[in-house]
Amino acid sequence: MAGSSFGKYFTVTTWGESHGEAVGVVVDGCPAGLPLAEADIQAWLDRRRPGQSRYATARQEADQVQILSGVFEGLTTGTPISLMVKNKDHHSADYSNIKNTYRPGHADYTFDAKYGFRDYRGGGRSSGRETLGRVAAGAIAAKILGKLGILIESRIVSIGGIEAEREEEVKAFLEQVMAEKDSAGGVAECVIWGVPAGVGEPVFDKLDARLAEAMMSIGAVKGVEIGDGFSVASRRGSENNDAFRADENGTIYKKTNHAGGVLGGISDGSRIVVRAAFKPTPSIARPQETVTTTGENTELVIHGRHDPLVLQRALVVMEAMAALAVLDLMLANMHATLAGIQKFYGVESFYGIIPEDGKE
Amino acid sequence: MAGSSFGKYFTVTTWGESHGEAVGVVVDGCPAGLPLAEADIQAWLDRRRPGQSRYATARQEADQVQILSGVFEGLTTGTPISLMVKNKDHHSADYSNIKNTYRPGHADYTFDAKYGFRDYRGGGRSSGRETLGRVAAGAIAAKILGKLGILIESRIVSIGGIEAEREEEVKAFLEQVMAEKDSAGGVAECVIWGVPAGVGEPVFDKLDARLAEAMMSIGAVKGVEIGDGFSVASRRGSENNDAFRADENGTIYKKTNHAGGVLGGISDGSRIVVRAAFKPTPSIARPQETVTTTGENTELVIHGRHDPLVLQRALVVMEAMAALAVLDLMLANMHATLAGIQKFYGVESFYGIIPEDGKE
Amino acid sequence: MAGSSFGKYFTVTTWGESHGEAVGVVVDGCPAGLPLAEADIQAWLDRRRPGQSRYATARQEADQVQILSGVFEGLTTGTPISLMVKNKDHHSADYSNIKNTYRPGHADYTFDAKYGFRDYRGGGRSSGRETLGRVAAGAIAAKILGKLGILIESRIVSIGGIEAEREEEVKAFLEQVMAEKDSAGGVAECVIWGVPAGVGEPVFDKLDARLAEAMMSIGAVKGVEIGDGFSVASRRGSENNDAFRADENGTIYKKTNHAGGVLGGISDGSRIVVRAAFKPTPSIARPQETVTTTGENTELVIHGRHDPLVLQRALVVMEAMAALAVLDLMLANMHATLAGIQKFYGVESFYGIIPEDGKE
Amino acid sequence: MAGSSFGKYFTVTTWGESHGEAVGVVVDGCPAGLPLAEADIQAWLDRRRPGQSRYATARQEADQVQILSGVFEGLTTGTPISLMVKNKDHHSADYSNIKNTYRPGHADYTFDAKYGFRDYRGGGRSSGRETLGRVAAGAIAAKILGKLGILIESRIVSIGGIEAEREEEVKAFLEQVMAEKDSAGGVAECVIWGVPAGVGEPVFDKLDARLAEAMMSIGAVKGVEIGDGFSVASRRGSENNDAFRADENGTIYKKTNHAGGVLGGISDGSRIVVRAAFKPTPSIARPQETVTTTGENTELVIHGRHDPLVLQRALVVMEAMAALAVLDLMLANMHATLAGIQKFYGVESFYGIIPEDGKE
Repeated sequence: MAGSSFGKYFTVTTWGESHGEAVGVVVDGCPAGLPLAEADIQAWLDRRRPGQSRYATARQEADQVQILSGVFEGLTTGTPISLMVKNKDHHSADYSNIKNTYRPGHADYTFDAKYGFRDYRGGGRSSGRETLGRVAAGAIAAKILGKLGILIESRIVSIGGIEAEREEEVKAFLEQVMAEKDSAGGVAECVIWGVPAGVGEPVFDKLDARLAEAMMSIGAVKGVEIGDGFSVASRRGSENNDAFRADENGTIYKKTNHAGGVLGGISDGSRIVVRAAFKPTPSIARPQETVTTTGENTELVIHGRHDPLVLQRALVVMEAMAALAVLDLMLANMHATLAGIQKFYGVESFYGIIPEDGKE
Repeated sequence: MAGSSFGKYFTVTTWGESHGEAVGVVVDGCPAGLPLAEADIQAWLDRRRPGQSRYATARQEADQVQILSGVFEGLTTGTPISLMVKNKDHHSADYSNIKNTYRPGHADYTFDAKYGFRDYRGGGRSSGRETLGRVAAGAIAAKILGKLGILIESRIVSIGGIEAEREEEVKAFLEQVMAEKDSAGGVAECVIWGVPAGVGEPVFDKLDARLAEAMMSIGAVKGVEIGDGFSVASRRGSENNDAFRADENGTIYKKTNHAGGVLGGISDGSRIVVRAAFKPTPSIARPQETVTTTGENTELVIHGRHDPLVLQRALVVMEAMAALAVLDLMLANMHATLAGIQKFYGVESFYGIIPEDGKE
Repeated sequence: MAGSSFGKYFTVTTWGESHGEAVGVVVDGCPAGLPLAEADIQAWLDRRRPGQSRYATARQEADQVQILSGVFEGLTTGTPISLMVKNKDHHSADYSNIKNTYRPGHADYTFDAKYGFRDYRGGGRSSGRETLGRVAAGAIAAKILGKLGILIESRIVSIGGIEAEREEEVKAFLEQVMAEKDSAGGVAECVIWGVPAGVGEPVFDKLDARLAEAMMSIGAVKGVEIGDGFSVASRRGSENNDAFRADENGTIYKKTNHAGGVLGGISDGSRIVVRAAFKPTPSIARPQETVTTTGENTELVIHGRHDPLVLQRALVVMEAMAALAVLDLMLANMHATLAGIQKFYGVESFYGIIPEDGKE
Repeated sequence: MAGSSFGKYFTVTTWGESHGEAVGVVVDGCPAGLPLAEADIQAWLDRRRPGQSRYATARQEADQVQILSGVFEGLTTGTPISLMVKNKDHHSADYSNIKNTYRPGHADYTFDAKYGFRDYRGGGRSSGRETLGRVAAGAIAAKILGKLGILIESRIVSIGGIEAEREEEVKAFLEQVMAEKDSAGGVAECVIWGVPAGVGEPVFDKLDARLAEAMMSIGAVKGVEIGDGFSVASRRGSENNDAFRADENGTIYKKTNHAGGVLGGISDGSRIVVRAAFKPTPSIARPQETVTTTGENTELVIHGRHDPLVLQRALVVMEAMAALAVLDLMLANMHATLAGIQKFYGVESFYGIIPEDGKE
């Protein structure tokens, strides 16, 4: 099945494996007239790059994006936009011992079960490198949302259970983790500002459902929550309901936002808050029990560079997925009322041509 | 947009509002040859009915399902199955005070924002009654999965933060909640047994992503997690990885299942575990601050019957959504390999007809 | 697969067999605010009814449509609209001899091949009765298009190769056909007025491609053409190109419309012309060679009422399909430019609510 | 909207304009295990190349395809396959006079109407060059179909109304056309052998409906017919019905194949015949009346190389589209019966893993 596409209106199809020729994405359904240059997308890709913190590895990944179609004289044409990032830096030697082994916590086993075989080099399609395509497409979606007054931000909430603000504690924790050749996980949050009320398509394409799907599709994510999330399960209704109030102009607002900006699956105009839990990265240098592809017990030590924490790199991926989900539903929402459709088409007058003979 | 459909292969489209003529669902893509009777579906609908515990209301809801198409001589024909449940028990008087008011925590405000107006009676399309269609469709999906050796179970994990096994504490808690005219939330879990390894379509239609979308689309859900979920964010990689082992026959198994049966978005053959956090039901009898539809501050008291806890009724909805998501991906998985397709079509021989003249 | 849905934005899912409980359709994606009553749809269904000409049979089919959801106080709510028509007039006896026989020209054989068995009564899902759902949904689509200044008309072009205007010849021809217990086919045409230029989504969801799919999906259709259709294959480019001209106001028009209003898969503002060829109805009272379901040669005589010509009943089905295809693409077209999207969202100002504490 | 994707299971998304960097396609949903090399696809692209007949132009188009992902050690991996063909041979000067003019018969006007502006160089996205992506993807689909015993052939039926077999007449006709700086159209036919009975998804994703959509989406196509097509409109039912017969083994066959292999929208096991009518190519060197983009009357002479007939190059495009449509429905058909699904999953036994502690 075509599982590599996301979005019904602004549809992105990603492709590429970590050790193939390149990775990329095709964006189909991008409206015409958006100013777009490689630099717009590159800015997002650069945020994804490792080696930007002490806890990330030093390996260079100079991922330069190319726009192959869909842009003319600096503006999108409305036709499909093909983006490509060539793969470099193939350390084939890094992965030689995993050709015949299933790495715990990775998709090696499940890809083999599904397809009968797999590209074992570096994780192939299941490698984190496939997020390049998502981020590139998300950059375009975010630019469009920006033109609609919508802003997306993200931050790390906690690392290894320690609140991110406690920088010294986190630092000490990660030093320890690295010393033990282990890895850590954490929770990250994405906030979307400026989405007007009314966005989301009940009952299945609800805004929160699409955000949940979007975030859960990011590798390493094991949980997603909206607003106050799991903590509302312990509350009373009287505590959790966001009361409505009107100001002196009759503008409606909410006193609180436990709901995280989504009510009945539709945006309510408040900021939208979504959070994702990331498991500790499975690639650790410590010896691990595992099996060979032929069903024999063995032990595995994964050599090479491995980040003890990938969370900081995942922030831009979360923002990209949020942009894709929100934009798709902003487009869907344009069809909500007959009045909106009539207004769009300026029913009384519309451009067109009429053949001279009247008949044809 | 067509937001009321779920599934790409086994597609269900639900319809109906709480105070309209009826609610129902059309199932398109159900394979032929499944024995199906109204009783099969009714059993699931009966589990959804209120009034089955002390903490639920006494209002009768005798929802009888009718099969209107797609079944002939007791077997599905492969053509669309239309199911309908007539609406009864319209307490119009129950909702008279909310016609011009936005109930906190409900979708009144957002539906108005999206569509310009709404069916205010009882929540209309945003009412819990729309889950009837989901459950009816889920019953069919679950029956098919049963024929494939797959079983779905669910249970309440906690109520108001109290583990469900502590029955006395829970009981006292809910008595207190009811006395205060308030409501409570909780966490529920769904387990799917028997899914073979290989189910899920990277990178966007992953099994966990579709389950997240499915569960988050249920009203009142604010968080979804797979396996050990949010708790893995605090763990080390060495603790969280599920080690592979092989038994004496070479059969591969995992020593643990922190992953909840999904690896890289694909099932690994272990039991699949998904959990959802339900907010406390927003309809409470206590006075609440809110606004009128014309933007004036007011106070609202919601009369009539309201369950302090809807979690027990949501279990069957979770099972239904799990069945829909899993079945859809089980169907998708049949296309994973060329060998599988060739085997299905028995390439060497297939039925057909040849015109006599050879040419045509 | 879910083959019973048409449309990506205005999605209609039809259901029902000729001898089941009922037939119907669910329309998902209908914008809110359209005035809609059963009478609007009934008018279209009445056009579909047989017994309205000398050449049609006398059997009564009083198909009354019911709106079960999606309409409140006379306006569509934006939620799914479920329409149902109860089946009556079951002449089970009419079909007793075809239970074990494959009728030539009908889908009996192919349904058996696909599903392993079939509802043999009256054609089941393959019967013309399934068009009830299409027409009902098309009635809604056409009403929306009417609110956008778009009009759809249809007419019979020829019957049995005789131009429809030659009424006496056609009459004599059909008398002969009836006398011989045979049937005839013909060509029908549908014209869509008022579609603004720009509608259609290259390269696969072109307006002409979607119209072709829509018309070919109608039972008995064996050919579809746009504009001058097949006849352009014999022309020169200099004859076939529609020259552009501008009037004194600078308004562009075409001198001719050989293209039928579609250029590069996108509407050009002229009237859109699509034609379909209908095969002679396969149910004839004459003896026919055929086989039993167990593979033995036999002869078949189909008793009961059979129209020698179904073309006049197909006109409303063509109009319905045209409405569905055009509306879907009118909705898609709203996303073509960033400027259009910004204008829709009135970017400088949009309604929303802001929690009091500023933070949330 | 995402109009550049075709297929629900074997989904192809094409991209690229004639004068952009490159053109290409992403194939999502290709099963794993298909042997695939660039040569397989190149063979199809070479058939598309101009300059292969006296009536085609001499301009070189050395289109070399690159496989960028989805293939490992010579076999498809089941992950998206990205194909790219770099654009060369940019004769920017060729198109300078059409920047501000609308060419009759081309999509210049309609693209401007839709998007507000267009890439005017050489037709941009509406140029025939976008068929490269379709053909490349079709090559893969055809290879899979070949592994399922299905063969696709095509031929020219007529040119300018003259049957293709009359080679001398056709030759003289085209010489005349070229001398007059004009162009011609024709009819081409595609036959698909070996499709088993049962393929097609009523009522909208019928095999003939999808083939019609597929062919009509090819630029220059103005009509599509199945089997005997438009000519059946003039026949009697007794003449047009294909009688079933059984041979001595009980194998069912049809005496004729007027239906073209499709009955009720489902394949009947006979060869499938689809025909398309191509308009004369609109680019002719003769002066034409037209308008400027600012609405002034003008005359246009299109310089540069233009084929008087593109039909011979369209044959491979028809075959590609047929392959895409048929394969998609062959995949869909695998879900038709519960028995088929159970057989696929070998219900009694399936591979999987069970955690050691039994619980998880």
